[in-house]
Amino acid sequence: MSLQNVLIAGRWRPAHASGTFRAENPATREPLPDEYPVSTWQDCEDALTAAVAAFDELGRLPTERIAAFLEAFAARIEARKDEIVRMANLETALPTSPRLADNELPRTTSQLRQAAAAAREGSWALPTIDTNNNIRSQLAAIGPIAVFGPNNFPLAFNSASGGDFAAAIAAGCPVIAKANSSHPGTTRLLAEEAFAAVQATGLPSATVQLIYRTSHQDGEYLVANERIGATAYTGSRPAGLALKRAADARGKPIYLELSSINPVVILPGALDERLEDIAGQFTTSCLMGTGQFCTNPGLVILLAGPQAEKFVALLVERFQAAPVGTLLSKGVAESLARAIEGKKWDGASVLTGGTSGGGKGYSFANTLLSVGGEDFLAHVHEHQAEAFGNASLLVVADGVAQAVEIIDEMEGNLTGCIYSHTGGADDVAYDALAPRLRQKVGRLLNDKMPTGVAVSPAMNHGGPFPATGHPGFTAVGIPASLRRFAMLHCYDGVRPQRLPPVLQDKNPTGTTWRLIDGAWTTADVG
Amino acid sequence: MSLQNVLIAGRWRPAHASGTFRAENPATREPLPDEYPVSTWQDCEDALTAAVAAFDELGRLPTERIAAFLEAFAARIEARKDEIVRMANLETALPTSPRLADNELPRTTSQLRQAAAAAREGSWALPTIDTNNNIRSQLAAIGPIAVFGPNNFPLAFNSASGGDFAAAIAAGCPVIAKANSSHPGTTRLLAEEAFAAVQATGLPSATVQLIYRTSHQDGEYLVANERIGATAYTGSRPAGLALKRAADARGKPIYLELSSINPVVILPGALDERLEDIAGQFTTSCLMGTGQFCTNPGLVILLAGPQAEKFVALLVERFQAAPVGTLLSKGVAESLARAIEGKKWDGASVLTGGTSGGGKGYSFANTLLSVGGEDFLAHVHEHQAEAFGNASLLVVADGVAQAVEIIDEMEGNLTGCIYSHTGGADDVAYDALAPRLRQKVGRLLNDKMPTGVAVSPAMNHGGPFPATGHPGFTAVGIPASLRRFAMLHCYDGVRPQRLPPVLQDKNPTGTTWRLIDGAWTTADVG
Repeated sequence: MSLQNVLIAGRWRPAHASGTFRAENPATREPLPDEYPVSTWQDCEDALTAAVAAFDELGRLPTERIAAFLEAFAARIEARKDEIVRMANLETALPTSPRLADNELPRTTSQLRQAAAAAREGSWALPTIDTNNNIRSQLAAIGPIAVFGPNNFPLAFNSASGGDFAAAIAAGCPVIAKANSSHPGTTRLLAEEAFAAVQATGLPSATVQLIYRTSHQDGEYLVANERIGATAYTGSRPAGLALKRAADARGKPIYLELSSINPVVILPGALDERLEDIAGQFTTSCLMGTGQFCTNPGLVILLAGPQAEKFVALLVERFQAAPVGTLLSKGVAESLARAIEGKKWDGASVLTGGTSGGGKGYSFANTLLSVGGEDFLAHVHEHQAEAFGNASLLVVADGVAQAVEIIDEMEGNLTGCIYSHTGGADDVAYDALAPRLRQKVGRLLNDKMPTGVAVSPAMNHGGPFPATGHPGFTAVGIPASLRRFAMLHCYDGVRPQRLPPVLQDKNPTGTTWRLIDGAWTTADVG
Repeated sequence: MSLQNVLIAGRWRPAHASGTFRAENPATREPLPDEYPVSTWQDCEDALTAAVAAFDELGRLPTERIAAFLEAFAARIEARKDEIVRMANLETALPTSPRLADNELPRTTSQLRQAAAAAREGSWALPTIDTNNNIRSQLAAIGPIAVFGPNNFPLAFNSASGGDFAAAIAAGCPVIAKANSSHPGTTRLLAEEAFAAVQATGLPSATVQLIYRTSHQDGEYLVANERIGATAYTGSRPAGLALKRAADARGKPIYLELSSINPVVILPGALDERLEDIAGQFTTSCLMGTGQFCTNPGLVILLAGPQAEKFVALLVERFQAAPVGTLLSKGVAESLARAIEGKKWDGASVLTGGTSGGGKGYSFANTLLSVGGEDFLAHVHEHQAEAFGNASLLVVADGVAQAVEIIDEMEGNLTGCIYSHTGGADDVAYDALAPRLRQKVGRLLNDKMPTGVAVSPAMNHGGPFPATGHPGFTAVGIPASLRRFAMLHCYDGVRPQRLPPVLQDKNPTGTTWRLIDGAWTTADVG
């Protein structure tokens, strides 16, 4: 057993610690051997000072250097793949294969490489040139970024390797990573490779820093600190909202990805047409990763009728037949049990599951609850509380009008899906529901489940509060996700040689898209 | 004397009023005849309900209809120009000509027409299509917008006709305008024309609504209300921060434009070269509109030396020779006097002015203060408090290093300027100062004063907190200013005929720029 070092100011060194903690193997409920420090404010202070210096230095380097770092880091992750995946499996109980080794790790390195390409190319910054007024602007790095990663994607959303990390670095911002306490070892291995890549590519040594844990109070100080540019947080709603309050009070941008229940509306015509297929899609989507996806379909809206009954019966069968996975932690298992109890208390019936256990380590039976539309509307708060894990609530509305009412009562969500008859039999219902659902969600889907989050330039992994803190930004998708870590830099009458290369008359890459006098072009000015 | 009606739900009707108020003519200090209601929450409630219905309806109309409205409104403003300008002059004491009639009113109608063109064309929404994944996204109207206009631009930033109004409507959002209490009559005339244009072009009747004043508490409820999409506020820092707290707590986007002192650094080589010219530019910029511009140069940083002394002496002459204008209100005059006293208390010397009066009605002598770099650094808070009006503080640094320190202590500002020698004699100093100033301001200028804010696609009228609430957005400049009033709408696998026209394969206008598979184009998909 060894107490691990933090990575601050280009050095792996002992923390100024107020205590220590160990991660647990959720599959065995046993603590893992390594011990990690809880940092005091002194570590945050040191990290902030170093990050500011790194930020200044990064701003003077060509973006090519940042791209080279991101690519070197991706290659190093691949070279150490087995060890990283083994550690992530120990700390999260997520399956080594295909989940960690074949899906999440390649997604992680692909994101880093896409971010590298975006940094190199520069179009993400929406460079805009007005030749008549000689005013030029672009989005540009905002400052050091604090990244708080979630528990459910130890690689692809890790604070030291994930989407927020890649986007912040590609935008030109150093990262202070705060490890998720449930997988500090995975985060350490990733940060080791990130730092090695920093050194290999000659970036400022504090471009990547790592702290494992702080007090809640110090976390709030960190996101509100004058030296921070912005914060990216993915995790629980209460902790996220506390950070938001602190950051908002000092006018510091904070991008939050909080809870989401991702409503799925399945219309009668779709069930008439392809009931079994949809039941299969839903079961897979709801139970994959033991339901621990941000976009897990936690709420299904059905219209009452014989087809809905048949569908529900089939889901129950499928849920009962499916293996019960391991949850990420004791905390996740406890929250899930609490959320289910809350819904039962407010009128939901248990169709299957509803009890702890049934799988290896921390687990909870695959669970389906059901509630009538009226009961849902009487307890909208409880029934749309997130039950993070392998559970979903089926809401049976007595008709389209009630389904509209239910959607109107929904909070903001990341996604919303509508399944409808391919021949148009549900179109009237669709037209009544879709415009209401549209304003409640970041991503609207037709005839598919929300759990696949493609790393696409058109993706929105975001949505109205409280799913996120601002509905104009996405956490997934390059280049759009980079724009969270930027401020708008306008240059008015600035002498040509003093402009950043991308705003000079000559297009520095020949391929960067720039909006010149109202037209997007890769050409030079003039 | 008559009590004016509010405009709610498509009807000019008596307010649910808790009291009344009258505007004052700042040039005579006499109250103006019309009486305006202070609305109770009931008016806000009614306006919110109507705005939601209008929002739904607007979403179903082609954007051409919104463009037609904005153009019809612009034409109606021109048709009633004399009356509007006369009223604005009575309420603000801003000169009828050239200021109101020849500059601000044409700017207002030009903004409305540019917004119309942006709405019609659609490129502002950054439509993005990923054909491989069939994922498509665009920015889209976020919901009803509350607009709180400032006192200093009764037309071009008016809550019922200005930049925020135009941008919100062009983005597809109905506006609930809260008049600035210093020019309710101007706002009423503009809202009359807006509403007439709404009727003439057949937009939903609650597309434009007007309330004159509410309690502070009701203002906070309004910006935090579930039915509000977002808020735009331009005005005083304390009132803006109170609204921000309320909106932030409910996760409602709020775009603030608060105080800014717009530092101007004048380097020795520039003074060697063109001292008189710069003195003239500064005097004009600082005193135009009696100094009541958001981008008024309220702080000048000079490097100690004989040229700086000569420059200061010349500024004093110019300030003394210039006529003293009328301030916008009693409140502005009182705040200015208070701010000047505060700076004197903390070590600033009065070079000229410093006393109330000297002009017609509410006025204050053209004022220059001076403080040494060390005193500035000892009292950074007081010395960068905004003194809104015809006054500026000259900070004399003992060298470049101290000037850097001063900039490092600056809060966020809208603008920052550096004047330097055209032959390169100041380049070392420039290179030390510019990167620091860059991160503190939205718009960086070379060799020009900040008061001209061109309505350019490359403009940034924004900047880091506390100048605004988020440094990624601009309040001036079309199309970028529209993006404040939008959320990101992603469509994943949505059937073709259900997509908004701009995301369908065929480019609906043939001229809309769309990012298709990583390349900006006006072509169709495929």
